[in-house]
Amino acid sequence: MSILELANIMNHDLGNSIALLTRTPATLNALLRGLPDERTLSNEGEHTWSVLDIVGHLIHCERTDWMPRAKWLLDFGESRPFGPFDRWGHVRESQGKPLPKLLDEFAAIRAENLVELRAMNLRPEDLSRRGLHPALGPVTLSELLAAWAAHDLNHIHQMSRVMARQYREAVGPFRQYMGVMQCAAHGG
Amino acid sequence: MSILELANIMNHDLGNSIALLTRTPATLNALLRGLPDERTLSNEGEHTWSVLDIVGHLIHCERTDWMPRAKWLLDFGESRPFGPFDRWGHVRESQGKPLPKLLDEFAAIRAENLVELRAMNLRPEDLSRRGLHPALGPVTLSELLAAWAAHDLNHIHQMSRVMARQYREAVGPFRQYMGVMQCAAHGG
Repeated sequence: MSILELANIMNHDLGNSIALLTRTPATLNALLRGLPDERTLSNEGEHTWSVLDIVGHLIHCERTDWMPRAKWLLDFGESRPFGPFDRWGHVRESQGKPLPKLLDEFAAIRAENLVELRAMNLRPEDLSRRGLHPALGPVTLSELLAAWAAHDLNHIHQMSRVMARQYREAVGPFRQYMGVMQCAAHGG
Repeated sequence: MSILELANIMNHDLGNSIALLTRTPATLNALLRGLPDERTLSNEGEHTWSVLDIVGHLIHCERTDWMPRAKWLLDFGESRPFGPFDRWGHVRESQGKPLPKLLDEFAAIRAENLVELRAMNLRPEDLSRRGLHPALGPVTLSELLAAWAAHDLNHIHQMSRVMARQYREAVGPFRQYMGVMQCAAHGG
């Protein structure tokens, strides 16, 4: 184990990540449920995501990314890379579904995954185990689980930007005071 | 009234802004209440804000910025500029208060302000009235109220970034996939 990996593990409090992961469905409910379609279906331009797309993506990640990869890592270590992740995989799955239904789906599958994570009773020696990411190379279980939690924050950040964009004209000269209006997407 | 101001008013749905303003206290409760101090007191470096500072700032704005300025605008039009806003005014007010208390204060004062806003029964001709911002110059009531709603999103954006920063090391190589980790503060 490299010093960098060890430092990353020392920097990671799994209990805190579980706490963050637990609260995201309620955060999204408060922020989004009941908003009119014109707010939740509009995106930032071609090949960008609406709020509805982002919730669909979070569901897709619960199904195919974080927990499946955590289990894969524990089963195969670095001997077999994780399967590829389809960044547009949510499109087919969430097509035609209204946002409240997606929020319900997200809450349900997140809760299931957290039950499973807790039941794994991970010890420090598990968290230091490595798997093989198809693009990033070796990653520890600790890094993968920390990324799961940070990924929620990444997409709350993105949603607030997508929603703020809809206020770009309405706020007039106040625009220059708002960092969110200057935020380039940084690829997500 | 300029064409630009008219376009900005046409772009603004006050009902939607009220809906956004109404849901922010619940969003912050879901996102923040119960997090340990080490998460809510850490900032992005010197002269930057923690999550607790941001909630304090939102309270300070409810007290001294948006609604007081809206009333000032209706009373004085462009004849007298709004008083200056103290960007660090929350520091004294929120000093030593725990986050749950600040979240309660924010929910209470936001609710009061929204009762008052609704009672003003603003008509399109009110929304097109102008006041004088001490730095930005003339602004319409519509722009001021739209900025109030967008300002919430601006600070949800900021909070998600401040919290994600705490995961910078723990996520290891996943960092490069997360736009929030690349987000410069854009001044807020």
